[in-house]
Amino acid sequence: MKRKSTHEPYVHGRSDREAERLNYQASKLAGLLHHDTRYSPGSRVLEAACGVGAQTTILAKNSPGAEFVSIDISPDSLVKAKLRVSHEGITNVTFLQGDVFHLPFGPETFDHIFVCFLLEHLPDPLLSLKCMKETLQPGGTITFIEGDHGSALFFPDSMDAHKVIDCLVHLQREMGGNALIGRELWHLMTDAGFTKVAVSPRIVYADASRPEFVEGVKNIFIAMVEGVREQAIARHLVDSETWEKGIRDLYCTTEQDGTFCYTFFKATGNKES
Amino acid sequence: MKRKSTHEPYVHGRSDREAERLNYQASKLAGLLHHDTRYSPGSRVLEAACGVGAQTTILAKNSPGAEFVSIDISPDSLVKAKLRVSHEGITNVTFLQGDVFHLPFGPETFDHIFVCFLLEHLPDPLLSLKCMKETLQPGGTITFIEGDHGSALFFPDSMDAHKVIDCLVHLQREMGGNALIGRELWHLMTDAGFTKVAVSPRIVYADASRPEFVEGVKNIFIAMVEGVREQAIARHLVDSETWEKGIRDLYCTTEQDGTFCYTFFKATGNKES
Repeated sequence: MKRKSTHEPYVHGRSDREAERLNYQASKLAGLLHHDTRYSPGSRVLEAACGVGAQTTILAKNSPGAEFVSIDISPDSLVKAKLRVSHEGITNVTFLQGDVFHLPFGPETFDHIFVCFLLEHLPDPLLSLKCMKETLQPGGTITFIEGDHGSALFFPDSMDAHKVIDCLVHLQREMGGNALIGRELWHLMTDAGFTKVAVSPRIVYADASRPEFVEGVKNIFIAMVEGVREQAIARHLVDSETWEKGIRDLYCTTEQDGTFCYTFFKATGNKES
Repeated sequence: MKRKSTHEPYVHGRSDREAERLNYQASKLAGLLHHDTRYSPGSRVLEAACGVGAQTTILAKNSPGAEFVSIDISPDSLVKAKLRVSHEGITNVTFLQGDVFHLPFGPETFDHIFVCFLLEHLPDPLLSLKCMKETLQPGGTITFIEGDHGSALFFPDSMDAHKVIDCLVHLQREMGGNALIGRELWHLMTDAGFTKVAVSPRIVYADASRPEFVEGVKNIFIAMVEGVREQAIARHLVDSETWEKGIRDLYCTTEQDGTFCYTFFKATGNKES
């Protein structure tokens, strides 16, 4: 649900508001997505495509003895990431501009690699895995976290709500990405030759008894879908009436009787030693 | 994914093969669905709609000091359930024929009620909740477990695979049920006036690193969909070529590169004391 690794337009844009959404998302999902990621002191960790640093601060705080190198293709995002990390007093992160397809590192440089919400934006995710694998030490681990918009399940169900989500899926696919990539982590990692691959789904469920999660659905998921309104209507993927109805229906799922589920996928694997 | 509470035809049928599928399903999912259900010694527990007893044996073994009354509308299913329970040497279950809309018990008879894979088959699930609530002691708990076929998420994705699943959803709806009911447990329980309602999704994920789950996808989910082939084709919901292609595509998700996810919903609530 985040950044992209080329200079081509990024489906969610790179506005300050989007940076805020990404930071909010990362903080709300930190427990669910990061609780089982800890790197031992002294280990060298590459965070590939750190964007505005939303995951970086969580990673670096959770493994204060590890040394992180966080790269991103976008200089503007890196400026935001550096500011954020320095604002939090974090000192174990070095930032570098770089592209996951042309990593500025020699082979076997890192003990671990961490990648969150990147693959969904790449035209050739498998190639990116192979490139990253090169920079990993034998025996090192790689971790991926991705969403899958096909997992959105809600009540009241609504055709129009699915249509507006499909607009985002469609636009992302046109830009070379894949918003349904979570379910593909297994084959991507095994095809790239990683061993001990383990994929685990992480489900977010919101109903009125969990007001924090309900706010998350509005401020993370629905806000993300709303972000492609102009593009979707300009490209005639949907008319504006259907769009408004679909968004209204998504908000209905956050009301008293509503429920909303979304599944993230986390995968870990090893480079054979 | 199971039984029905009237004498009308039951979407999955009541064959021996179906009973076997239900028992296999229950044993495979016992940890996921039952690990947090334990009843204290001496408590009186109603299992509403026990079917062939697939969940009964798990329930009764997990809470050996509790006294279970397991009811079902179908005398044939009850015969199978009794045999199964006696075969396992279980002695804390009494079976009774009964309908959840006309329960043969006075008010406030039970300390707890347990219901699994029933609501999806009922024409008026909310009414059934209200009927069951009558028989519950103030302060007693009720537990529901239901699937939601809209949660099926798989790779490789396939339009035809979704079409065959939709046939089952459609046939179940025609018979007055709702195969997408998992997402509705929250509002059903709050609308029925239960308090402290807590819903938790339970996701099953299968890839080639988890061969037991892959077998489960074949023997539970795909077998269940295959069970409505004749009806679906006879009702012209799909042509036989699309059907075969959809089923083949479902089996593809159980091969080396494939993944398959399904989400169950478990909900607990209290009757106000």
